[in-house]
Amino acid sequence: MAVIDLNADLGESFGAWDLGDDRAMLDLVTSANVACGFHAGDPTRILETLRLATTRRTEIGAQVSYPDLRGFGRRDLDLPAADLTADVIYQIGALQGLATAAGTRVLYVKPHGALYNRIVHDERQAGAVVDAVIAIDPSLAIVGLPDSEVGRLAEAEGLRFVPEAFADRAYRPDGTLVPRIEAGAVLHDAGEIAERMLRLATEGVVTAIDGTDIALSAETICVHGDTAGAVAIARAVRDSIEAAGLTIAPFASSSR
Amino acid sequence: MAVIDLNADLGESFGAWDLGDDRAMLDLVTSANVACGFHAGDPTRILETLRLATTRRTEIGAQVSYPDLRGFGRRDLDLPAADLTADVIYQIGALQGLATAAGTRVLYVKPHGALYNRIVHDERQAGAVVDAVIAIDPSLAIVGLPDSEVGRLAEAEGLRFVPEAFADRAYRPDGTLVPRIEAGAVLHDAGEIAERMLRLATEGVVTAIDGTDIALSAETICVHGDTAGAVAIARAVRDSIEAAGLTIAPFASSSR
Amino acid sequence: MAVIDLNADLGESFGAWDLGDDRAMLDLVTSANVACGFHAGDPTRILETLRLATTRRTEIGAQVSYPDLRGFGRRDLDLPAADLTADVIYQIGALQGLATAAGTRVLYVKPHGALYNRIVHDERQAGAVVDAVIAIDPSLAIVGLPDSEVGRLAEAEGLRFVPEAFADRAYRPDGTLVPRIEAGAVLHDAGEIAERMLRLATEGVVTAIDGTDIALSAETICVHGDTAGAVAIARAVRDSIEAAGLTIAPFASSSR
Amino acid sequence: MAVIDLNADLGESFGAWDLGDDRAMLDLVTSANVACGFHAGDPTRILETLRLATTRRTEIGAQVSYPDLRGFGRRDLDLPAADLTADVIYQIGALQGLATAAGTRVLYVKPHGALYNRIVHDERQAGAVVDAVIAIDPSLAIVGLPDSEVGRLAEAEGLRFVPEAFADRAYRPDGTLVPRIEAGAVLHDAGEIAERMLRLATEGVVTAIDGTDIALSAETICVHGDTAGAVAIARAVRDSIEAAGLTIAPFASSSR
Repeated sequence: MAVIDLNADLGESFGAWDLGDDRAMLDLVTSANVACGFHAGDPTRILETLRLATTRRTEIGAQVSYPDLRGFGRRDLDLPAADLTADVIYQIGALQGLATAAGTRVLYVKPHGALYNRIVHDERQAGAVVDAVIAIDPSLAIVGLPDSEVGRLAEAEGLRFVPEAFADRAYRPDGTLVPRIEAGAVLHDAGEIAERMLRLATEGVVTAIDGTDIALSAETICVHGDTAGAVAIARAVRDSIEAAGLTIAPFASSSR
Repeated sequence: MAVIDLNADLGESFGAWDLGDDRAMLDLVTSANVACGFHAGDPTRILETLRLATTRRTEIGAQVSYPDLRGFGRRDLDLPAADLTADVIYQIGALQGLATAAGTRVLYVKPHGALYNRIVHDERQAGAVVDAVIAIDPSLAIVGLPDSEVGRLAEAEGLRFVPEAFADRAYRPDGTLVPRIEAGAVLHDAGEIAERMLRLATEGVVTAIDGTDIALSAETICVHGDTAGAVAIARAVRDSIEAAGLTIAPFASSSR
Repeated sequence: MAVIDLNADLGESFGAWDLGDDRAMLDLVTSANVACGFHAGDPTRILETLRLATTRRTEIGAQVSYPDLRGFGRRDLDLPAADLTADVIYQIGALQGLATAAGTRVLYVKPHGALYNRIVHDERQAGAVVDAVIAIDPSLAIVGLPDSEVGRLAEAEGLRFVPEAFADRAYRPDGTLVPRIEAGAVLHDAGEIAERMLRLATEGVVTAIDGTDIALSAETICVHGDTAGAVAIARAVRDSIEAAGLTIAPFASSSR
Repeated sequence: MAVIDLNADLGESFGAWDLGDDRAMLDLVTSANVACGFHAGDPTRILETLRLATTRRTEIGAQVSYPDLRGFGRRDLDLPAADLTADVIYQIGALQGLATAAGTRVLYVKPHGALYNRIVHDERQAGAVVDAVIAIDPSLAIVGLPDSEVGRLAEAEGLRFVPEAFADRAYRPDGTLVPRIEAGAVLHDAGEIAERMLRLATEGVVTAIDGTDIALSAETICVHGDTAGAVAIARAVRDSIEAAGLTIAPFASSSR
């Protein structure tokens, strides 16, 4: 694994409310998951982020979500499949429009928050997301958790599925994430995180929370940018991987 | 003028609330102004309407609006140009996405309600709408009132502008609409309306509220479908024009 | 049981979209569950309904919901307890304000849709609703399904809980509702429904879907008013109960 | 003028988005204009702020707004009077409910943003706000600009109107604010601002942008808390007024 991608959630400011340091993160990541207005972002702020991304040639993904600004898309919503499919198409389309206006284009879809977690195991909702991508543009890749329902359904339909790892999250021995409510679920030490991600990028291995080494297949690493500390972690991850001679490049530009 | 287009506002149901008889209207009009979710419509209901339109080969326009579900886009909003441009791009993009999923595509833009009225005279907002169309797809036509600011700006930028007439509205001698709050502003007699529109289609003339004949240049006639009476009027207009041997066809398919 | 209450969901129009015949229903029911703007209703339309109710002296309840206009509050939402409590307080307070302006007041709370169904069994959300009522006004009654979690918690906290029956729904032998997706779940024959509700009001018994008679404790009967047929059913229920010499009166005015 | 009130806009965080330092400001001001969810705030975050205010015995006002989260209530909206009255009642009622739950109560109303500015001169909207206050609770005071339409109408209806000054804004010789888009409209020097407000509190005089002294009648001074610099200014204003031996106390607790 000589090439790896770094992705982050961007475009999440809303109206008068700022969130994250999009400018700093766009210098660090190669793929930008841009909010589509359902959990965060509004057309004006999204367009600003897309214009910044265009000047840096970061690849753009649609960070689609449940309709839940108030809850930042983190609250589980039992959407009928028809509603979810239509909502995902609407969001991707809206972002495609803004991307065109900014001189760039949408190359992938990364579901957000509660939707991301739900389609790891919920076949009906996972299928609704896959149906949406097929309906609007089957050349779009889907980013998600390795060994997930959405990944299986996407690949069964001939879509490209891109498995991702989380830089600041602890893993269980079975390769799933330690839930946020459990102790040790979120890592904070930039050095430790950078070291873990370097090993992942070079060996495809990460140490689980019980100390055992597990294989983890990931084409992209998710880093955060919503706090100053998060930006520092992202920079440490990038620096350590580049210092080791690996290439950080957008997955969407690489052949499958 | 041997060819004329009929357009109507569709896709305006929202969630559990029904509005209009999209099925009936799709058999009568040649251009469907489909709501984009800002004044009416939600992704699920919009997609249903687009699918119905696809089977009838009606041409699709984006009925863009101020963000105002509660007020149905009829309340004047003093949007900064940057917000309005981004909002219009977002709506067009979202509808393009849904149209692609339904097997059709968006060919024009018709601003709705208070926005429609405002860009007749407000240069800043008219410019913001024109900028949005240029940014996302300059091949899209814009439908609006003849002799309007948006029409002048659109044509100055090389966009196609399509002037429209309103079937059930009275006109002043200067060619502007009699405001809704004045007596006689809205016509209700299907026979009278059909006769007026036939004369418009054949002679390019309509009788103003003071009894004088005025020239009115229109490539499309707007009919309504939100009540049973409105559908009957639309049918009468269509029947009388066809009976006279004229062709009713989408303006978007005709050469400019 | 010589006195029974009839309740219906009202105030569910939203902006330009009409729903239900509030005028007709206010002549038939004694308790109006008025929408609070989260699943339906907007301040203007809610105020109109409250003013109509005031002239008829119908008692007013707050029909609180998940925040979900698009889904009419029918989509299950996994709200944290703190959010749900705050949302319910906000809705009750808003309706209290509008009721004061209309010259009436809120006497009870009836959760709506997916929230209604969830708090039958979900202790966390049921507790959050009960907490909200205690925090804003513990003299408010809560209407819900007999033998439900929300009923148990409400009564344990000293609140008045009012069990209700549904006029047009079939019951299982265990006293729960036959789910809407099953055959026979919803009754349509006005005469049959009126007869069932008369027996419920006089004997406290209803025939379950398997033909057995079951005891059902209800102080209020929910009727619908969203279609012409629904209004006719409500009228039949009212007429048959009154013809039998029973009194239809608001539960909120009766002693507990 | 031996007593003056300090007010600030609080409760303006929304969901995951933080805004302002409510904790710091609650130690500095005596009146808290709490957002009601239409331009900022959500029930959970509003309730948090109200609970903080309760422990400090700060008086609470309803910061009512146009429905415009995306635009933070700063975009002018041409609402029909009936909609505006109903919206203001709804917001006050919702905040009253949350205030009751937090152990406090709402004592005044301060319109926000574009609505604040509009009712300085727009008689129809000013009247709609006054009507709302009369309808829900005529004991509520209204805070606004001296010599404004809303002030005249409020007092004509027997409501208490509380004129306010803005700590960080420049004034024209006629006593109106220098518009934000003009140079020098906003003051930034904490020392200068504190000195100006001390003179206002003691002499009822402020120096206008042309260097002339003008009389300004204000019972409350608005300070901001949305940035660290703003909090420092608020502290400087408070300190200088207290050091001069004046009393800072809520206007709502003082006799009119």
